[in-house]
Amino acid sequence: MIRTLAVVGTGLIGTSVALAAARHGVTVHLLDTDPRAVRTAELLGAGTARPPGEPVDLAVLAVPPSRVADVLTQQQARGLARGYTDVASVKAGPEREVLARAPRPTHFVGGHPMAGRERSGPLAARADLFQDRTWVLTPSRLTSKQTFDRALELIALCGGVPTVMQSLAHDETVAITSHAPHLMAGLVAARLGGRSPVTALLVGQGFRDATRIARGDARLWTDIVETNAAEVAGVLTALQTDLTALLTAVRELAARDGQHRARSRRDLTGLLERGVAALETLPAPAPGPLAADTARVDVTLAGHPGELARLLDTAAGHGASPDTVAAPLAPHGPNGPLVIRFELVRADAAVLAGKLAAEGWDVARGQDPEGDVQDGPAPALAGVPG
Amino acid sequence: MIRTLAVVGTGLIGTSVALAAARHGVTVHLLDTDPRAVRTAELLGAGTARPPGEPVDLAVLAVPPSRVADVLTQQQARGLARGYTDVASVKAGPEREVLARAPRPTHFVGGHPMAGRERSGPLAARADLFQDRTWVLTPSRLTSKQTFDRALELIALCGGVPTVMQSLAHDETVAITSHAPHLMAGLVAARLGGRSPVTALLVGQGFRDATRIARGDARLWTDIVETNAAEVAGVLTALQTDLTALLTAVRELAARDGQHRARSRRDLTGLLERGVAALETLPAPAPGPLAADTARVDVTLAGHPGELARLLDTAAGHGASPDTVAAPLAPHGPNGPLVIRFELVRADAAVLAGKLAAEGWDVARGQDPEGDVQDGPAPALAGVPG
Repeated sequence: MIRTLAVVGTGLIGTSVALAAARHGVTVHLLDTDPRAVRTAELLGAGTARPPGEPVDLAVLAVPPSRVADVLTQQQARGLARGYTDVASVKAGPEREVLARAPRPTHFVGGHPMAGRERSGPLAARADLFQDRTWVLTPSRLTSKQTFDRALELIALCGGVPTVMQSLAHDETVAITSHAPHLMAGLVAARLGGRSPVTALLVGQGFRDATRIARGDARLWTDIVETNAAEVAGVLTALQTDLTALLTAVRELAARDGQHRARSRRDLTGLLERGVAALETLPAPAPGPLAADTARVDVTLAGHPGELARLLDTAAGHGASPDTVAAPLAPHGPNGPLVIRFELVRADAAVLAGKLAAEGWDVARGQDPEGDVQDGPAPALAGVPG
Repeated sequence: MIRTLAVVGTGLIGTSVALAAARHGVTVHLLDTDPRAVRTAELLGAGTARPPGEPVDLAVLAVPPSRVADVLTQQQARGLARGYTDVASVKAGPEREVLARAPRPTHFVGGHPMAGRERSGPLAARADLFQDRTWVLTPSRLTSKQTFDRALELIALCGGVPTVMQSLAHDETVAITSHAPHLMAGLVAARLGGRSPVTALLVGQGFRDATRIARGDARLWTDIVETNAAEVAGVLTALQTDLTALLTAVRELAARDGQHRARSRRDLTGLLERGVAALETLPAPAPGPLAADTARVDVTLAGHPGELARLLDTAAGHGASPDTVAAPLAPHGPNGPLVIRFELVRADAAVLAGKLAAEGWDVARGQDPEGDVQDGPAPALAGVPG
């Protein structure tokens, strides 16, 4: 049972952990090399800048990955806590260093909450930053059961979802899901450099989203990439190979070489489709394949102008978001009545179907994913993205 | 004055244009090669599937870039409209084709609204999709004043912000701000392919944002890139050069080669800082340099725990969003009182300062951007992104 907590490094993540723990009545002690950061966190109600009188139950090291082993060694030497964890986004290198030189490696378990914000520093902290987010723990061969359990308890206090991985498997994965994407976004963003102001007028939401991560602190990210350099280099090498193939195809299309044109177009589409397919394997906001716990509600339209707008309004009032609506179906051929399909959680589907039927819509409940009516692709001329 | 409009291609963009025009009482005629798309748009209240009895005032060609010249030629031959524009995201190639073979190139002006959504098709359409968005017009040397004015009127109906560019300058810019970023996001997304399901647990919001654009229709994007292949190839070539330099630095860091370590770290940080600097030139949601029409409100804290949380709550109630708060200042040294600085529109700043003073806070109004108190960087250990 965690009654006292120490947070070393009161930036965004450390202060958010402190706020979450403080909300649960835990006494939180705040440490940072920057007195402004500590005092800001204290003024936010995240805890006290007073050092603990006796070892706390758990200390969270919210420092860059290259500093984890050093800070752990220092704090174990002064007896800050009984157990320690960290929140760095690289785990294998720090674990190696901890095993090599920390006084009590058994009292340490690596951790990485999959949460962050564009803004950094204690002012950006939020007690609910980790709510329902994955929080990876990477116990070493020496991590004690008690230390592991304390970290699990902290994750529970923060509302996170614990996952256990080996440190190397974690690093190999985040190189793909976080570190290489950050670097690539940085390269794309840098292409704006030295352009005329009119360029900003042609920057849409797509570019802003694609480069948001690249706004992160360059020194911190240098530290992250350096600590995970081998895994990141592997991903970048694969990306360079893909980019070379892509560039070959685009150059051939630019050359308007009739002979290679069809093949270049195929190659380009293939590269794009690989990306789309990979994203569809994620639990996505976009409509994906019918999940086991969802059901379908099919509404057949009579064909009155504006009828569909009214249906979508009504459905939205009963928990059907736009993302729950698939492209219209034409089960009786292109000129037969259109069917609008909602896909949502089974319980919600039952409610929605009831409401719509009560309002006189022609409703059918889809049960069997296989028992599918013809479901064409989105309309061929499906809009030109900005 | 536009009284009648035709939309050719009732996907996301075409249907959104139709919805916006219909809201203003314009009679909109909807055309698409896919009868489902037309009927869906009609059922949304975007207009009628009935062909116009006489030429409409303006026709919007919402088709892929490679189709613009062909569709314009067909529709001018059958006399669909008095004026024509398109919404494709590539302009120079289609313009060349139009000048080469359209019956009346004077009656055409290229257009590109900088708006789009992750979802495509008429169901994703929104009448306000273009509100306050840049809408580029690229008149050719033959475009008539009357045609240009009709397009301007359409943009006004849609709430867009018109900008005029040469077609080639447009294409060179969107290759940087849209086409190359889309392709790079696709490559990054494709790296997820064939990974174990646990990988999805380590996909955070950063990855989702960075790859959102890559969910776009692969065939449509192949068409876009092919039509702008020369400009896109140029940007990809520059990106490949940057990636090679980046990879060299990361590999040297992986090799733990003490001799090159410092230089590799410098190179890596330099590449990341170029991206950060480029993004800071954009009108950004993140706090940027003080704009001419904004003012500062400085609040000096007494130092009570939780005091800052109360201040931020109060300020939020008076229009100060978290983005209007800079990192805390320590004008009297690290151990002096902390100063919280709000930066917001001058009028709002006056109101906020008044409210805070009335509630007893120690408030000062900053006037002169240069008359600045020491404003340190964000705290050193500024959180580890997920």
